[in-house]
Parts: sequence; C-alpha cells; structure tokens
Amino acid sequence: MSERRPSPNNELVALYPGSFDPLHNGHVDIIHRASDLFGHVIVAVYDKPDKRLYFTTAERVELVRESVAQWTNVEAASYANLTVDYARDRSAHAIIRGLRATSDFDFEFQLALMNRHLNEDIEALFLMTSLEHAHLSSTLVKELSQHGAPIEDLVPAGVAEALRRKRERTDG
Amino acid sequence: MSERRPSPNNELVALYPGSFDPLHNGHVDIIHRASDLFGHVIVAVYDKPDKRLYFTTAERVELVRESVAQWTNVEAASYANLTVDYARDRSAHAIIRGLRATSDFDFEFQLALMNRHLNEDIEALFLMTSLEHAHLSSTLVKELSQHGAPIEDLVPAGVAEALRRKRERTDG
Amino acid sequence: MSERRPSPNNELVALYPGSFDPLHNGHVDIIHRASDLFGHVIVAVYDKPDKRLYFTTAERVELVRESVAQWTNVEAASYANLTVDYARDRSAHAIIRGLRATSDFDFEFQLALMNRHLNEDIEALFLMTSLEHAHLSSTLVKELSQHGAPIEDLVPAGVAEALRRKRERTDG
Amino acid sequence: MSERRPSPNNELVALYPGSFDPLHNGHVDIIHRASDLFGHVIVAVYDKPDKRLYFTTAERVELVRESVAQWTNVEAASYANLTVDYARDRSAHAIIRGLRATSDFDFEFQLALMNRHLNEDIEALFLMTSLEHAHLSSTLVKELSQHGAPIEDLVPAGVAEALRRKRERTDG
Amino acid sequence: MSERRPSPNNELVALYPGSFDPLHNGHVDIIHRASDLFGHVIVAVYDKPDKRLYFTTAERVELVRESVAQWTNVEAASYANLTVDYARDRSAHAIIRGLRATSDFDFEFQLALMNRHLNEDIEALFLMTSLEHAHLSSTLVKELSQHGAPIEDLVPAGVAEALRRKRERTDG
Amino acid sequence: MSERRPSPNNELVALYPGSFDPLHNGHVDIIHRASDLFGHVIVAVYDKPDKRLYFTTAERVELVRESVAQWTNVEAASYANLTVDYARDRSAHAIIRGLRATSDFDFEFQLALMNRHLNEDIEALFLMTSLEHAHLSSTLVKELSQHGAPIEDLVPAGVAEALRRKRERTDG
Repeated sequence: MSERRPSPNNELVALYPGSFDPLHNGHVDIIHRASDLFGHVIVAVYDKPDKRLYFTTAERVELVRESVAQWTNVEAASYANLTVDYARDRSAHAIIRGLRATSDFDFEFQLALMNRHLNEDIEALFLMTSLEHAHLSSTLVKELSQHGAPIEDLVPAGVAEALRRKRERTDG
Repeated sequence: MSERRPSPNNELVALYPGSFDPLHNGHVDIIHRASDLFGHVIVAVYDKPDKRLYFTTAERVELVRESVAQWTNVEAASYANLTVDYARDRSAHAIIRGLRATSDFDFEFQLALMNRHLNEDIEALFLMTSLEHAHLSSTLVKELSQHGAPIEDLVPAGVAEALRRKRERTDG
Repeated sequence: MSERRPSPNNELVALYPGSFDPLHNGHVDIIHRASDLFGHVIVAVYDKPDKRLYFTTAERVELVRESVAQWTNVEAASYANLTVDYARDRSAHAIIRGLRATSDFDFEFQLALMNRHLNEDIEALFLMTSLEHAHLSSTLVKELSQHGAPIEDLVPAGVAEALRRKRERTDG
Repeated sequence: MSERRPSPNNELVALYPGSFDPLHNGHVDIIHRASDLFGHVIVAVYDKPDKRLYFTTAERVELVRESVAQWTNVEAASYANLTVDYARDRSAHAIIRGLRATSDFDFEFQLALMNRHLNEDIEALFLMTSLEHAHLSSTLVKELSQHGAPIEDLVPAGVAEALRRKRERTDG
Repeated sequence: MSERRPSPNNELVALYPGSFDPLHNGHVDIIHRASDLFGHVIVAVYDKPDKRLYFTTAERVELVRESVAQWTNVEAASYANLTVDYARDRSAHAIIRGLRATSDFDFEFQLALMNRHLNEDIEALFLMTSLEHAHLSSTLVKELSQHGAPIEDLVPAGVAEALRRKRERTDG
Repeated sequence: MSERRPSPNNELVALYPGSFDPLHNGHVDIIHRASDLFGHVIVAVYDKPDKRLYFTTAERVELVRESVAQWTNVEAASYANLTVDYARDRSAHAIIRGLRATSDFDFEFQLALMNRHLNEDIEALFLMTSLEHAHLSSTLVKELSQHGAPIEDLVPAGVAEALRRKRERTDG
C-alpha cells in the first residue's frame, strides 16, 4: 500500500466516521488506504454528548489532525448530527468503515442498512484493517495505558503522549 | 442509488471478479453501485477449467455483457490467471466484492488477506448487496430454474432466457 | 403473510417477551406472523426496574396495546418475574423471538438454552423478521428520534407520536 | 419435554423437509418438539436425484416412518418439487428447521429468505435442537458407522441396523 | 472426564483469569479439565476497581478457593495488573479460557491477540466448556438468583449460599 | 515464541490430526507452539482413502517429517481409524487444533463435541494460529502453486519443492 501512488486526483469524497477515543494505528491504516483511493477523505469525530468518553471532542479532532498531517487529502472534522446527514452536507460519495474481524461485521452491517434506508445516495464501503492491527481497539488501548503498559506501537506518537498526560493527571 | 449521478469522471479502476454462473440481480446491484463510484468497472469472469459450471466462460461473459450494457463505464471480461495478477495487468486500484450477509464474510476475508499478501497495492473493497437480493445465489437460481420456478425477478432477462434454453435442452 | 387467513382457531398460546422500548415495525412484523399461527399471542413487556429505559412499563404496554389492536388474538401485558415462570403462569406453549440476522442468534440461543433448563415444557420458536425491517432496533429508533430524523416508516404511528412528545419534553 | 401433553388438537400443519440420509436423534428431537405443537407434522424426505446419497429415497422414508411411529400426528413422505411448492400442496402453515448452533444459521436464513420470496404464505419456524444432539450430523454418523464406531445412542434403532447392514454389504 | 487420572506430575503452569462474579459450574468444568493437564492451575480473579461487581475481590477469591479445594494442584488468587504481566510474574506457560459457543469466540480471539502482542511467550489455550454448561454465565446466574429461581445446579454450593445471603441482605 | 525454552520435560502427549495436503506454515506454527508445551507431539496425517488428495499419505507424512525435524519431541505419523481411537492408542492427553479465525470455529466445535462424546478422556485444545498465517489454507496454497505463484513464504521448503515437482509433472 501507499508510497507508490501520488494522491489520487479525483473528486470522490469519503467520510470515515467514528468515536476515535482515541485514534489508534488500525484507524490510521484505514485512513491511509482510503487516501490512496479517494480524492478527499474526511475523518469525522462523532460529537456525542452523553457518551462516557476519555477525550473531549476537541482533543479527539486535534489528535486526528496531527496524526494525518502527512496526507494532504485527509481532513479532520467533527459532527453532531446523523452520520448520513453529515455525509450529505459534505457531499460524500461513500461512508467507509474498517473491518477487523467477524466480530465487527454484524453491527456494521445493521448500521449500514439503516444508513442506506435513510439516504440511499451514499454508499457504504468496507475496508479491511491490516492484520497487524487486528487486535486493536480504543477500549483496549485505554486499558493498557491505564496499566502503564507500552502503547507506542499501537497509536500515533501524539496519541501516546496524550494518553500519558491524561494518565498522570488521573494518577496524580 | 443511481440515476442521480452521471457516470463518475475519475481514473479509478475496479475489478469485480467471480464465477457469475450465472449473473444474478445481486451481482447487477453491486455492479451498479460500483459504476457510481469508479471511472471504470471490469466484471471479470473466472475461466476456471475444472469447475463444474453450468455455462461456458464465453456464455457467462456474454450474459454479463448484455446485462451491463446500460452502464458505459462497465466492461465484461474473462481471466484465467490469479485474480491479483489480472488486477495488476488491468491496473485496477481495487478488487470489489459484494457481501450479502455474515455467511459471506469469513471466506471473503481470508481470500482478501491472501490477495493482499500477494499484492498489497490492490485494495479490497466490500459493498453491501441490497437487502432485496440477500437471498440470491447462483446456486439457488440454477436450482429454481431446474424446477421450472419463476426466476424473472431474480436475474436479468437475458440470463432468464439462457436458463430456460439450457433447461429445455437438458429436459428434451 | 397475513390477510389471507382468518385468525387461527386453535388453543396454542405464544408468549413474545421483550423490552419493547419502544415497539418498532420489526416487532409488529413478528407479532403479525405469530398471530397467523397461534390461537393467542401475548406480547409481554418486561418490567425490569433497574434498566435505563426510555418509556415506563405502563407506556410501553400501552404503545403495544394500541399497535396490535387490529389482531383480536393478540394481547399486551407486562411481567416482572422470570420469563419462563410468566410463560407457565399464562399456560404458554412457546416463547417466540424474532431473528433479524446472525448478530441476534448467539445471545438468543444462550437465553433459550437457559429457559429450557429452567422449564423444558415451553418450546423456544424463532421467527425471521422481514428483510425490510432487518436494520431496525429500538436503540437505533431512539437515536434517530433524538436527532429529529423521520421515523414514521420505522414504528407504528402511536410510537412515532410518543417519541415526538418525549423528545419535545426533553428539548424544551 | 413431551409425555406431559396429549397430541395437540389443532389444524396446524408443519412441514419438516430434509435429506435425512439418514435420520438421526437430533432430527427425532425436532420431530418430537414439533409434534407437541402442531396438529400434523410431515417429515418430508427430499427426493433429489443427483445427490450422492447413502440411502435411497424409499429407504430414507421407511427409516423415518418406523422411527416416528410412536407419534400419531407425524407422517413420513417424500417430494421432488420445490419445498415451498410441496408445502403449498400439503397446506402446510409452516416449514420447520432445527438449529444446532450458529454454523447452521446463515445457510438456513438464506434458504428461508428464498422460500419466503417464493411463497410468503408459509412461515419459517426454527426450533432449537437439544444440546445433547448438538454434535450430530448425518455426515458424521455415516463416517462413524463406516469406522465401525458405536452409533446406537446417536440414531434410532432401525437406522443403526440399516447402517450396519449397509456397511457389511460394502465391506463384504 | 477426570477421576481417571492422578494429578499430572509436570511443571506446566496454567493461568485461568476472569471476573468470576461469581464462579459458576461452567468455570468449575474448565478448572477441572485444566487440572487434568497442567501441573499447577492458578484461578486468578481480576481485581478491577471500577467495574460494577456483585461480590468483592476477597469474596470472589474465597468462593473460588472453597470450590476448587478438591484439586490439590489448583490455586485461587487475585491480581490487579495486566493479565500477561501477572502470567509472567507467576511463570505461567499458558493462559486458558473456556469457550461456550461462537458468541465467545470473537472477543476472546481479539483479547488473545493483544496478549500475544504484549508477551509472545505465553500461549493462549482454549478449552471447550461441557455442553451441559453452555447456557451459563455469571450475569444470568445473578439474574436468576435475584428472582429467587433455583440455582443449586448451576453453581457450587458455596456460591449458591453466598448468592442467597447477598439477596436476603438486599431484599431486607 | 520458542527458542526461549528447552523442550518441555513432561509426559503430556498431544495429537495434532489433519489432512496436511500439504503442510503449510500455519500448521508449522501450531506444531511449534504445541512443542513448547507438550512433552511429545504427534502430527497425525489422516489416511482417508476416498478423499481427492493432492499428495499420497506417504508423501504427506514425509513432508511433515522433514519439516518438523528441528523439534526432537515432534513425531510424524499416519492413521486410518477414528481420531479418538488413534488418540487413545497413542495415549494422547489432548487433541489440538489450530484456529485461524471465526470461520474455523463452528466446524471445529462440532467435531470436538463428537470426539468428546466418543471419548471424554481426551481433551480438545484450541491454539491460535499466528496472524501472519491467518490467510493460509492447504486449498489456497495448492491453487497458488497451480498458477505458478510464489509460495516459498507460505510453506516449508520441502513442501514448496514437492509442489513444484507435482506441478511440472502435471504440466508436462
């Protein structure tokens, strides 16, 4: 994947929605793959107020932004409305989701069906996460961080640093 | 989906490989969705010699060709080498596969992993078949046809006609 | 399904238990199918005190009641004891559950095994939800409602109205 | 389950279709459960000519017949047309299928969807096989028999005897 | 299983980690199987502070201890660090986990992948729970207990007694 | 994994049965993991006469033998009776199987249940294949070989050589 092709010169817009609490290398892998195909990729942090999140929406967007800076066709954003409505607002052609394994599939399928019901103009596209990230989830990353386990190879450098700061504040 | 957008004006090439023995409306649905995103879509019939097939490779390609004639950016072809090698020969950016339901997922995942191992430049993209086609498979279509059940709403008109002729020849 | 047969004239009693918070069209579809087979169908709202529910037990029962009024052999009720105990109290022959997709299956299977362990006289019967409702869940319906998305084609009219009132009260 | 209730006095007809090559105790368990609910149960052996079967259609029907003789509301039959067509011919209200575990589910779901597409008047009902039969399949039973392993607790007595005779004929 | 072999005379150490809130017969079955293979088995209660648990860590360890007293090579313990770190501290060769059914599999697989990532020296071993315990989970056991349902055949005697005392205290 | 520990000095015997047509690196990975735990590991090629196999039983055993030569506690063998009977004959404590992904699970579970039914003295143990081999199957390896694709990183050197010779003989 990757260094081989210049940024694609097309008008296709992909929306990659999620909680990203926080972004991990599995997410980055999907972003990288999407940025090879689509002219523009929007990584959209869902600004859900009532969820028990580790990082604020602003923090999560900023962590995405600095982690995807190397791809000129990738943008970090946040949204608070329905995913399909935000996709339409941004003229996205596709909503992309990463699949790690079978466990992801059923939920993603139901969600995609509902999105298609709400707006059939926006296609759901599933990409496969690289196997080396198959064990990654934001929940596991946070749990590891809270135990002080090494996470440098699981998340971008900025996220590792943010997790370290967050942990020190909590411990202190 | 569909009439809403003109054929996409981009250079992305998608390969949609399969047996297509025969093409059914679930396949056509995936082709339609792909033709909305990709500048060029190659529907590639796998010319596997030793498989017990109902239609010859030439017949299967022709049935695809006439069924996708309405999309100017879709091409019917056949290939006999490895899928990833054919994808590379045709400069495809992605191999697309339709997912009907969970049952498809595990096999497709393993296949995509192997393809990525063989050539990491070609991305695997999964699209969701429309729910109205979730019950369709080429095997079921052939079984229905052999029982003389109505299949006009399951396959393109040309395929229904070809199945009818094939059955009459076998019965007679 | 449906208008074709008169209400079945038999003594079989089916219990359809659930949270129904709120009832949606997938539930109604299962109720309809069950009412074609069983002489009497009890839609039983589980009165679980400690669950974070959107509607009260009384509200949920009332929403079921008005939504199933067209079937004379369907009854809305609530219960607070074990499902198998309530089933025995009501002389039910079967506990029915709808399956939307594979994702439902494992949990339903474990639950049914436990119920059979507790009372082997009551059979578990699984019915398939219609495909057009495969994307429906009470959780998604509530989330859509909170975003003000149109839900009229996802739930009975009374439920749509109740969700609208609930939302206005929360927003106001 | 079972001895507790007299044969149900209702007009509901259930069709239980399959290859039954041969019938095993998991099948018998489903038949028993169905005969507790339905006024009439038809165990229908599919007379598929081209399948590599161990027993002939006549043998398979006979093995079913003698194994279900204790239930007066159960009938053994065979059919060669589409399952839904046979179900309609016999005025069946439901097609029943046993589920052993998740592995069965996806295939059964697709089949049931197709059947519903072909005839929406006939409901698909899934019953859970008893756990003590979760490991049973006709294929495994035949493989065990060919190795001379004891199968008396896996199949009805008549089937065990038929498998023994078949094996002796093949060995001799 | 079991009485057949003396306690294995080998140096293999197995760690069986979990919440055990509370221990049920499915867990005991796995412990029994493990104690037949491994020279030493550590049943390790995870001392997670922020989880809403029914029993304290000390109570859970004690319930394990008295329930496994008949096996001289089984030890009850608790730990608060990462599972792989505790496994290394205790020189465990393998982390064992019971599988009841498919539903367990995906989560266990992801967890095991992460553990292997963190420490590839410790092997993950999956054992199959006996079918007679396939319907058991600590959550279901607690729910049954709260309804006053009989649980004596689902958990060790000490756990049944502890659940009874806990319920009486809550009710009173 | 591996070089870290000397061959385990215990009396535990593991049987690893399969077709091994041919052995690939995923199998070797499981053998390696097993040889770290068990005092003796028997890799047992199933000598099934009627299966359409690529290599003879003798060839498959020889390919295993030369591929596992570096582990002194691993033995290559073949067997023609039931797996549980062979396990008993060899005094095996456990039958081990590798799991690549969810797709393997259901079938393996049913098989293990049947084996436990036939002989409850022999435990089924599941090990996880390393992720780098998750895409491997003997079927895919043979298909790649027949297309002349590079397979040196998928199978042991001896197997690659045997596949090359087999292909040349077929082509010539």
